[in-house]
Amino acid sequence: SSYSTPIRATLFPGDGIGPEISESVKEIFQAAGVPIEWEEHYVGTEIDPRTQSFLTWESLESVRRNKVGLKGPMATPIGKGHRSLNLTLRKELNLYANVRPCYSLPGYKTRYDNVNLITIRENTEGEYSGLEHQVVRGVVESLKIITRQASLRVAEYAFHYAKAHGRERVSAIHKANIMQKTDGLFLKCCREVAEKYPEIRYEEVVIDNCCMMLVKNPALFDVLVMPNLYGDIISDLCAGLIGGLGLTPSCNIGEGGIALAEAVHGSAPDIAGKNLANPTALLLSGVTMLRHLDLHDKADRIQNAILNTIAEGKYRTADLGGSSKTTEFTAAIIDHL
Amino acid sequence: SSYSTPIRATLFPGDGIGPEISESVKEIFQAAGVPIEWEEHYVGTEIDPRTQSFLTWESLESVRRNKVGLKGPMATPIGKGHRSLNLTLRKELNLYANVRPCYSLPGYKTRYDNVNLITIRENTEGEYSGLEHQVVRGVVESLKIITRQASLRVAEYAFHYAKAHGRERVSAIHKANIMQKTDGLFLKCCREVAEKYPEIRYEEVVIDNCCMMLVKNPALFDVLVMPNLYGDIISDLCAGLIGGLGLTPSCNIGEGGIALAEAVHGSAPDIAGKNLANPTALLLSGVTMLRHLDLHDKADRIQNAILNTIAEGKYRTADLGGSSKTTEFTAAIIDHL
Ligand SMILES: CC(C)[C@H](C(=O)O)[C@@H](O)C(=O)O
Ligand SMILES: CC(C)[C@H](C(=O)O)[C@@H](O)C(=O)O
Repeated sequence: SSYSTPIRATLFPGDGIGPEISESVKEIFQAAGVPIEWEEHYVGTEIDPRTQSFLTWESLESVRRNKVGLKGPMATPIGKGHRSLNLTLRKELNLYANVRPCYSLPGYKTRYDNVNLITIRENTEGEYSGLEHQVVRGVVESLKIITRQASLRVAEYAFHYAKAHGRERVSAIHKANIMQKTDGLFLKCCREVAEKYPEIRYEEVVIDNCCMMLVKNPALFDVLVMPNLYGDIISDLCAGLIGGLGLTPSCNIGEGGIALAEAVHGSAPDIAGKNLANPTALLLSGVTMLRHLDLHDKADRIQNAILNTIAEGKYRTADLGGSSKTTEFTAAIIDHL
Repeated sequence: SSYSTPIRATLFPGDGIGPEISESVKEIFQAAGVPIEWEEHYVGTEIDPRTQSFLTWESLESVRRNKVGLKGPMATPIGKGHRSLNLTLRKELNLYANVRPCYSLPGYKTRYDNVNLITIRENTEGEYSGLEHQVVRGVVESLKIITRQASLRVAEYAFHYAKAHGRERVSAIHKANIMQKTDGLFLKCCREVAEKYPEIRYEEVVIDNCCMMLVKNPALFDVLVMPNLYGDIISDLCAGLIGGLGLTPSCNIGEGGIALAEAVHGSAPDIAGKNLANPTALLLSGVTMLRHLDLHDKADRIQNAILNTIAEGKYRTADLGGSSKTTEFTAAIIDHL
């Protein structure tokens, strides 16, 4: 695809190492000729009453308007009276699916070869309802909410994704042997959607068994779809298989076609500002954003340059066992474009 | 320790491969001179109204009286109007802690060396409350219950276990950044108990991060204690690291000093009765039962014979890549006693 006018996209550089790795993304995207104009928004220094958080209303409006954005790590400021920044984004933008491709990086050895998984997490309800209650002192309860609407929506997204990306199989992960009603409803919705995709194999796997199978042989899975908490757990487990959150992209899909890509690792305040951070997760997240925009040529070019730089092994940041600065690694990627 | 009169212990051979692997345990224990007299109880063929399940009242009474038992796999019969056999045992016997030692078996190669972990799972409440409710069509909720009593009880057990077994560290696994009240109460209880054990290091790890760390480097952990569902997930993940549920022992600790050891793998109906099953998980579970009875000499002798037989590699069942029959593997272990 080609665009005559640049695409406007929101950029949340975030905190800690966020600004440095965002700089790396901007440079590489520019060098690759990506037709994007960034609207940068920082986390505010005061609570914005309209969002009940340190995220400004303007920044959310920017994503709503552009429908596409990229987000660095954000450390939620300590203190009462406001909501977590990540959760605020999910709620306010109705980011209903979190998609995390997880594949082995050629040349970067872990215990696992050829991992190639996609986790698709329901991102708005389940154990994240925020509904908790003290019955009496010493007895507390949390509510897990599962709705047909949100379950169908994420299941639709998972099958649509599987088909669009030439994937063969979707596994719904659950604990319906224990939570028969909630996880049972989730499965029922997945089954309904599965029937509309006869070309995609559909299976159901209990979460405990899924985790055991993943560590024994991740090649047993392809696309996994699941309720919120299981997605939180399994996406991090999968990231661990290939080296950690510093290497895995993530993209949130919201109502109305919003795509907010994000690096899900922390803001690493200990190394912030020292030109030591690894921008890979944010870069690869940016690549998922480009794919969402159907800019596949640019996405391929940048993704290959990142993977080739890591595979070559000459320029690697400290977390990958190298001694390159962020700027050196960035320059090496630009050379590989 | 030595006993003049034999110790009575309940044995649930269970279904499928259960009777064969139980036979193996009985033979090896007898050959090792373990002073146990087994009271065998099979799952009933009809629902016992006193237990609302296919477990007979007499079998539960047997465990209550003996305070010690060993359980093979039990497939819950399909149909309505009765409770899962495993859950019935947990509820009726108040089996509040599920303890799973998980260590690499010398000579049996997986992707991980030197795994040596203990997961201790709260086994009575949390997501397993059984309380679920349809608010309106398409909206369902499950209740997760955390109590101070059950949390303190399992935390006490974990620290007691760590101290008694010369362990250095206890990690409480949680998601209190999201479930602040429920998992928050669990953590509060762990902290209270931790203060009474200044010699044991205490830390708190978020479950998603824990799973990532476990697959990257399981040596980062020692003893892990956690609410019910996280224990279900993480204990299976850990089993996967060393080869699966066919190799990992499990023991349930109940109120009043009950210990019910169990193999947590399935009943494998496809190979039942064919003399192909691997009795290792049930044997090692039996060993944890012996340790509970302070029969450490016998426990060591049997455990070493099992591990040496597997390490030698001449006699292994099909699941471990060998071609031995259950009875051949059993005879080999007896030779190694
Ligand atoms: C930071 C935390 C609230 C968040 C979550 O639990 O969803 C994180 O683990 C994630 O996966 O994005
Ligand atoms: C069979 C199932 C109900 C059980 C559980 O979820 O506890 C099993 O996974 C276990 O770990 O013993």
